[in-house]
Amino acid sequence: MIYIDKKSMIPKYLQIYEQIKKEILNGTMQQEQRIFSSRELAQVLGVSRNTVNSAYAQLEAEGYIYPKRGVGFRVIKVPQIANGISHKVQEKTKCIQKESFYKQKVKYELTNSSHTSDLFPKSIWKKCTLESIDRLEQEAKLTEFQDKQGELYLRQNLLKYLKRIRGVACDESQIVITCGFQQSLEYVCNILSDTGNKIMMEEPGYHKARVLFEHSGYLIGTVPVDRNGLCVDKLSYESNVSALYTTPSHQFPTGVTLTIDRRYELLSWAQKHGVYILEDDFDSEQRFYAKPVPSLQSIDRYGNVIYFGTFSKALSPSIRMGYMILPPALIEKYHKRYDEYNATVPVLNQYIIGRMLESGLYDKHIRRLNQVFKKRLEAFHIAFENISNHIQLVSNGTGQYFLLHFSQETSQEVLIAKALEQGVRVYSTMKFWQDQAECPPNTLFLGLSKISIEEIPDCVNRLQKAWDAWL
Amino acid sequence: MIYIDKKSMIPKYLQIYEQIKKEILNGTMQQEQRIFSSRELAQVLGVSRNTVNSAYAQLEAEGYIYPKRGVGFRVIKVPQIANGISHKVQEKTKCIQKESFYKQKVKYELTNSSHTSDLFPKSIWKKCTLESIDRLEQEAKLTEFQDKQGELYLRQNLLKYLKRIRGVACDESQIVITCGFQQSLEYVCNILSDTGNKIMMEEPGYHKARVLFEHSGYLIGTVPVDRNGLCVDKLSYESNVSALYTTPSHQFPTGVTLTIDRRYELLSWAQKHGVYILEDDFDSEQRFYAKPVPSLQSIDRYGNVIYFGTFSKALSPSIRMGYMILPPALIEKYHKRYDEYNATVPVLNQYIIGRMLESGLYDKHIRRLNQVFKKRLEAFHIAFENISNHIQLVSNGTGQYFLLHFSQETSQEVLIAKALEQGVRVYSTMKFWQDQAECPPNTLFLGLSKISIEEIPDCVNRLQKAWDAWL
Repeated sequence: MIYIDKKSMIPKYLQIYEQIKKEILNGTMQQEQRIFSSRELAQVLGVSRNTVNSAYAQLEAEGYIYPKRGVGFRVIKVPQIANGISHKVQEKTKCIQKESFYKQKVKYELTNSSHTSDLFPKSIWKKCTLESIDRLEQEAKLTEFQDKQGELYLRQNLLKYLKRIRGVACDESQIVITCGFQQSLEYVCNILSDTGNKIMMEEPGYHKARVLFEHSGYLIGTVPVDRNGLCVDKLSYESNVSALYTTPSHQFPTGVTLTIDRRYELLSWAQKHGVYILEDDFDSEQRFYAKPVPSLQSIDRYGNVIYFGTFSKALSPSIRMGYMILPPALIEKYHKRYDEYNATVPVLNQYIIGRMLESGLYDKHIRRLNQVFKKRLEAFHIAFENISNHIQLVSNGTGQYFLLHFSQETSQEVLIAKALEQGVRVYSTMKFWQDQAECPPNTLFLGLSKISIEEIPDCVNRLQKAWDAWL
Repeated sequence: MIYIDKKSMIPKYLQIYEQIKKEILNGTMQQEQRIFSSRELAQVLGVSRNTVNSAYAQLEAEGYIYPKRGVGFRVIKVPQIANGISHKVQEKTKCIQKESFYKQKVKYELTNSSHTSDLFPKSIWKKCTLESIDRLEQEAKLTEFQDKQGELYLRQNLLKYLKRIRGVACDESQIVITCGFQQSLEYVCNILSDTGNKIMMEEPGYHKARVLFEHSGYLIGTVPVDRNGLCVDKLSYESNVSALYTTPSHQFPTGVTLTIDRRYELLSWAQKHGVYILEDDFDSEQRFYAKPVPSLQSIDRYGNVIYFGTFSKALSPSIRMGYMILPPALIEKYHKRYDEYNATVPVLNQYIIGRMLESGLYDKHIRRLNQVFKKRLEAFHIAFENISNHIQLVSNGTGQYFLLHFSQETSQEVLIAKALEQGVRVYSTMKFWQDQAECPPNTLFLGLSKISIEEIPDCVNRLQKAWDAWL
């Protein structure tokens, strides 16, 4: 029995649909049972035939009924399992809010992985967005399927920039635009999978790269870092080594620069053993006291270097865009492996950044950023120098992080907890070590991208209070 | 000997830097050689001491020289390999332009994977961009590190939409925002890797999903599709089956809908064997003659269904955004596996789409899109009906593609070549078949997203000319 509520907000056809569906699901209407023709039902219910037809169309579309020649619609057999289900009981998963605990207590967040919001080039982004939408419309590319490698327009302008700033030697066909450094690494892991199952890393090194290598099935070997960067003479070699991951311009996390002699030794070692060098150049355009150091890629004669860059440090981590430069031999492997894959970066966003690079607004933004970070670094330098001789700030004048060394015996855990009591969040270097027993207990990792210059004196005062026993 | 060209555009400090670097690299300056103090060199060259200091700072930053207490700077040992390198000779890789051959000849592109450019909601996108930038600035999130799972604001608004349109039963903690369907699948392949090494697919099915499963190391099993969708009674089961991939709302590429009886049987089979159902619901909101069919996810009582959606069909493939709904048990595995991974989708783009959903502009856009696609589908229907009884258009009135069946004996290759001669590009169904010998030779795959309604009569006229022998 179908009942129509003419006062209901629910359209009549939906009322009919819902009631017939319910009767099929609860077994009132049996398999193969013929249902009223739309003319009959319309008459019975006092509704238009179109209304009934709409209800039947929906029931047919969902496979509850099917048309049988000459006899109208019949009911499909629905298994017992369906009976009585209307809404599944949903087990509520608890959203893990591990951040909330800290957020309440933290006044100063000394991280290097997000910026103070004044640093985003908001008006430039708006301007380039509007221009790029119009441009894409003119080129009839707003609704096009994309080049998985990245838009040519962006690659061409990025190439010009990288040649100028990082000395890279390549053409735009070797550049691949990705949705961030980790995706770049994933591409490379998949392309290199037949060249060995081990990757060498600096110790200490970037933990998020290590996690990715491990998930891709690689074993990890390590090589120590001293104040001249990766110790090339300590590099071991086994036949299963596929690649070496390094941060030569600004070692992560120690902040040192790989000297030129070691650069050549490293390239020579790579060539000798057929090992690829994964050069992560994440923030080298942000060098305050000198020009950026030329990249390894720029002096690689043999095509062993894979170069990685990102816009996370220069624009915002929320941009989610990075890139890599593959040697010619690997670009072919990339195309083969990813032939049926789609792009991962919005074409509009690629045009926006392409436009920023082309117009010089990107350079202008970097200059501004470097002024800001330089001042922050100097403010930290002065503040820490003033409070004690037993604490040393280590930085090569690049990027958005530095290390603190304590000359007194102490532990990272205690220092972090004490700082947090004063409302300052600082970070351990522990997770950057493969062999955590080797991690110096008297070192901390601090970022300056999320704290304004005005806040630094109060922040260091709090740290002085927190660490009084070791100063 | 250093020479300063005072008329040059190149800054003096760079001229000094370049010449000293060259002398070190070509061996004129030897290892451990002391170089002039900045005072001495400034005097010799007649430049300011600051100029020389800048050059030295750069040389030191790059590791060509190092300071030695009391004696100024000394030269580092540079290996012979470095000699004479200024720019590496770059092997130019040829950009494969496989598309260019077709582009010249093609007047009508019957694809389903890009849209006519009038369909992009350009002014909505601009409006929501400007609003979202301001909103993110207010929330101090423009420069924040992101939730890898996707912004809560988008997930909440997407959830409301999916509940209303697709009947999904979940909460926002189960939604993961991705940079497209393939990335969603990659996540799932990695999460499910311990549950078996085989994935069942519909035959025929979506080839880009198959490629991804194969690259992830899975074996592929197949199950046939008839006019009621996947043949659940023909599903084989082996203990190594991890998941079944299906397109129940709009089978790809046959265009049929999985009937409700089979839906329950499929869920029952999945529960019995502990197999996950990967429900790819790529275009089901685009249903022209009935409401969208409720998703499998909406009637899944046991948490076996993983639901996949995308914005590629509704907005543009250039958007690069998709999403998935994981059952509670898997969301925990996702967080564990991807703990150290970053988000892949720009936060601003997430806010833009969140805003479109919240404001109802997304619904409005979908209604417009459906009107357009419905008219195109009907125009094709009428045009093909008019030209012959030996050709049949197959569609369930959803989305952006349909099949053509020829009742005469023919071959896809010949039909495609003949159409191309007339300037129309149509597609084979061959690549959708795992066992290509089973692919019907008298079927073609056509899309209607890239052709305007006005062009359809001329397009079908050309096809009539091309296929005259089989009509």
